[in-house]
Amino acid sequence: MKNQLSRNAHFADRLLEAIGRKGSPVCVGIDPSFAKLPEELRVKDEPVGIEAFSLAIVEAVAGVVPAVKPQIAYFERYGSAGVAVYERVVRAALTAGLVVIGDVKRGDIGSTAAEYAAGHLLAPGAPDAITVNGYFGADGLEPFVAACRKAGKGLFVLVRTSNPSAAAIQDFANCSGETFYRHMAGQMAALGGGPQLTGKSGYSLIGAVVGATYPDEARQLRQIMPQQIFLVPGYGAQGATAADCAAAFKPDGTGAIVNASRSVIYAFRDAKHAGKPWRRAISDAAGDFAREIRDAVTKK
Amino acid sequence: MKNQLSRNAHFADRLLEAIGRKGSPVCVGIDPSFAKLPEELRVKDEPVGIEAFSLAIVEAVAGVVPAVKPQIAYFERYGSAGVAVYERVVRAALTAGLVVIGDVKRGDIGSTAAEYAAGHLLAPGAPDAITVNGYFGADGLEPFVAACRKAGKGLFVLVRTSNPSAAAIQDFANCSGETFYRHMAGQMAALGGGPQLTGKSGYSLIGAVVGATYPDEARQLRQIMPQQIFLVPGYGAQGATAADCAAAFKPDGTGAIVNASRSVIYAFRDAKHAGKPWRRAISDAAGDFAREIRDAVTKK
Repeated sequence: MKNQLSRNAHFADRLLEAIGRKGSPVCVGIDPSFAKLPEELRVKDEPVGIEAFSLAIVEAVAGVVPAVKPQIAYFERYGSAGVAVYERVVRAALTAGLVVIGDVKRGDIGSTAAEYAAGHLLAPGAPDAITVNGYFGADGLEPFVAACRKAGKGLFVLVRTSNPSAAAIQDFANCSGETFYRHMAGQMAALGGGPQLTGKSGYSLIGAVVGATYPDEARQLRQIMPQQIFLVPGYGAQGATAADCAAAFKPDGTGAIVNASRSVIYAFRDAKHAGKPWRRAISDAAGDFAREIRDAVTKK
Repeated sequence: MKNQLSRNAHFADRLLEAIGRKGSPVCVGIDPSFAKLPEELRVKDEPVGIEAFSLAIVEAVAGVVPAVKPQIAYFERYGSAGVAVYERVVRAALTAGLVVIGDVKRGDIGSTAAEYAAGHLLAPGAPDAITVNGYFGADGLEPFVAACRKAGKGLFVLVRTSNPSAAAIQDFANCSGETFYRHMAGQMAALGGGPQLTGKSGYSLIGAVVGATYPDEARQLRQIMPQQIFLVPGYGAQGATAADCAAAFKPDGTGAIVNASRSVIYAFRDAKHAGKPWRRAISDAAGDFAREIRDAVTKK
């Protein structure tokens, strides 16, 4: 694929290049639930069905979107056998030229984080980026950052999640009305700033997970974290619209990547795609999603 | 083993019974780093060495302490092959009659958390309890709680971590001087309260991770979370003393379990245990640790 940056280039530059090449800042989440698989894949050995489905998703969306985000929990439910499937799905997506974001949300004290970084960022066949949890603060994130610098990888730190009860934890506020999640955002902006972590695009290798279900918050967070690429979950099944998601972007249309999982990978169950082969439904839904987000970001 | 409660009894009751039987509220962390293994285990295939070491730790401490805490990151660094080793170590520890706390610190939105709960709590051979991250709030924890109720398992939710930069995140405070980690503690006390989650011992199946490096904080958290069993990391290599750890306990000597990892499992590298076979050094160090914590809690 011409124009594709080398795997060792800065993660943010590689992601932006891939978005430019595919024409839309979107990502398809690979969250395979056995009970929801197409009939023909509901075979006796569940991880086998999960693997066939995940590989089919990779194939169906590789020409349409720049990135995929396998959610490791859907594989870990099958223990080590499931993790082996996750590894093969990640490799297949890398081979297909997709940017791969491993949704693992790991986080621990520094010495432990270094082990996670070795497995999830430095190992052969590891994803291009992973999601991490910032609850331990800077020293828990540093081993991940060091691994990213070494290997041209990226991080998305949880800042604002898209689930209903996030507010009870993340809206805890100080006397100035500053909330905990904005405090976390400020910490990540500080940690991710500086020339060593910044690519040619001006974005840091430390991005942020910012749920799309609260667009006003995304706009505020955009101000606090100018150098962070936002990974935006919450579109579709979780209730956010394309216009909601557009709030995470800068006026130039960069700065975020919107994820859809269930609304794309189970599109063959929607009336809208009735009668199509399931692979085709997934590919078409990924295309619709990509156009919808591109249009919403362009109109903004 | 007579007096041992059935695996389906309430987790808190099982843990307290095991602590009573072994005579000390301690837990040995299984955090195997290949470079630190005894010479004879530094074989070519690293996961093989890690497995032999971890199984030897289980054998060395099974008669001495009530619980072990395998840290999955040290296994995940080897990908699915390492996770398979983790699974075998967990099973060996369960078979040895130990209470097993899987230190996995998972956390995500509810639908994803349900997948993690299936893999880490409900699967055959899963640990008795796991550590989880509460950043997503109640709906992210509910699938873990439901799995625990179903299977007699337990959770330890991260409240106050023992690492140096925890404060920059967790000390974020509101106008009353209430800090974020105490807010998290209050949320967990509320979520973990109520008769359905409480065992005969009066403790909830939702416990809390409370670092030992700040004993005054542990005392305050003890007041906020009367029904939570504290899992206390930070002893030894991370700098906390037995007296520091005692702050996490109630006056009756219950309510917490103190973890030591590096100071026990690498005891064969200490001058104190020079000349002993490495297995014996680990066993002796576990015994010293157990006595030291028991004495500190008794004197309190």
